[in-house]
Amino acid sequence: MSEFEVPVPAAVDAPPAEPAPHVHGYTANKDAYLRRLKRIEGQVRGIARMVDEDKYCIDILTQVAAVTKALHAVSLGLVEEHIGHCVVGAASEPDPELRAEAIDFKVKEATDAIGRLLR
Amino acid sequence: MSEFEVPVPAAVDAPPAEPAPHVHGYTANKDAYLRRLKRIEGQVRGIARMVDEDKYCIDILTQVAAVTKALHAVSLGLVEEHIGHCVVGAASEPDPELRAEAIDFKVKEATDAIGRLLR
Amino acid sequence: MSEFEVPVPAAVDAPPAEPAPHVHGYTANKDAYLRRLKRIEGQVRGIARMVDEDKYCIDILTQVAAVTKALHAVSLGLVEEHIGHCVVGAASEPDPELRAEAIDFKVKEATDAIGRLLR
Amino acid sequence: MSEFEVPVPAAVDAPPAEPAPHVHGYTANKDAYLRRLKRIEGQVRGIARMVDEDKYCIDILTQVAAVTKALHAVSLGLVEEHIGHCVVGAASEPDPELRAEAIDFKVKEATDAIGRLLR
Repeated sequence: MSEFEVPVPAAVDAPPAEPAPHVHGYTANKDAYLRRLKRIEGQVRGIARMVDEDKYCIDILTQVAAVTKALHAVSLGLVEEHIGHCVVGAASEPDPELRAEAIDFKVKEATDAIGRLLR
Repeated sequence: MSEFEVPVPAAVDAPPAEPAPHVHGYTANKDAYLRRLKRIEGQVRGIARMVDEDKYCIDILTQVAAVTKALHAVSLGLVEEHIGHCVVGAASEPDPELRAEAIDFKVKEATDAIGRLLR
Repeated sequence: MSEFEVPVPAAVDAPPAEPAPHVHGYTANKDAYLRRLKRIEGQVRGIARMVDEDKYCIDILTQVAAVTKALHAVSLGLVEEHIGHCVVGAASEPDPELRAEAIDFKVKEATDAIGRLLR
Repeated sequence: MSEFEVPVPAAVDAPPAEPAPHVHGYTANKDAYLRRLKRIEGQVRGIARMVDEDKYCIDILTQVAAVTKALHAVSLGLVEEHIGHCVVGAASEPDPELRAEAIDFKVKEATDAIGRLLR
């Protein structure tokens, strides 16, 4: 959880009846992400079952590669929504100095996250 | 499951009381693998929870990268045991022609699996 | 070369004496990139020399991994500057409809490029 | 260069007229590797040219991804030949104790090299 996780500006003026405390880029596709993660969780359980049933190592490796690929796809989706939402959000900050700072921060943060995926 | 998944020769002469139908390279460390996969399964569930609770995208990405890394470590363990067990097993085939063929097959198979991990 | 490669808005009002036809995110660090790529080129030549001199395969693999890592670092630098420059540039488009379109295009393009790096 | 890089046993008894001091798994395909590395070197030079000519960052990233992929292919070839030659070579050591040790060493070394590629 990040200290930089900010409620979207709209929420400030919103009537108290409307909660929506945090809206991230992925929120619109939340159900799709949860379904994909559920499926990945099942795949990991399937790999454990293969190990437990002494399946052939190469077949297990193939499944591990498939899960890694599925996680990469989830990552890319999150990166896309992060850039399109959080980075672009920083770019809409009206004060030029704060904007430059916010953009730098968000871009650095996104690039670091991508770097962790590449490693 | 692969059609090339062979019971180890020893099992052929083993008394029927001893089951052990398939012994792969990872069998000796089976419990350790199952524990690691259990932990990975929990991590994936944790990521789903983060999405569900609208956590910050970058923090989710960090967790996804951690799971990918944990899966890589599992893969490497399996690759190590596959090479040390199945490839080396093929190399102990007494008939030279069959041996060359078995080695080629096992090495190709291992390399293809590593290639799928790299992609 | 992309058909979407646009001269920066500033260039439009710039006096004709100032050329600067394309300014990309990486332009400010161009010399640093050229130096890094020169070093990578030398590393690749070094690997060829190792192969030519029949060096040990594992040592060659270590060098190949080092070059791959250096290329990843270059990629990450380009991604960072692309997001901070081109994506953020799209976000400064005054017309809201064009802006949304430009952002979507740039973000998709960046994510696709990151996806190609992950594969 | 590794201290474990050993001349093949045959070379020990070979007449001094016959040089061939080191024969590795990749030696048979040496020319093909040198051609591939030459091409990769040219690709890296092409990327530097793109940077120098201020090409669009995304197009540069696409080229960097292509070079990374080409290096992965070279790595996989080396891994395949290393396993099929050096690991299998260790498995042909007649003394069982030395053999077990040699196999363990070679397999560990190969897996570590693959691990460096995955990172």
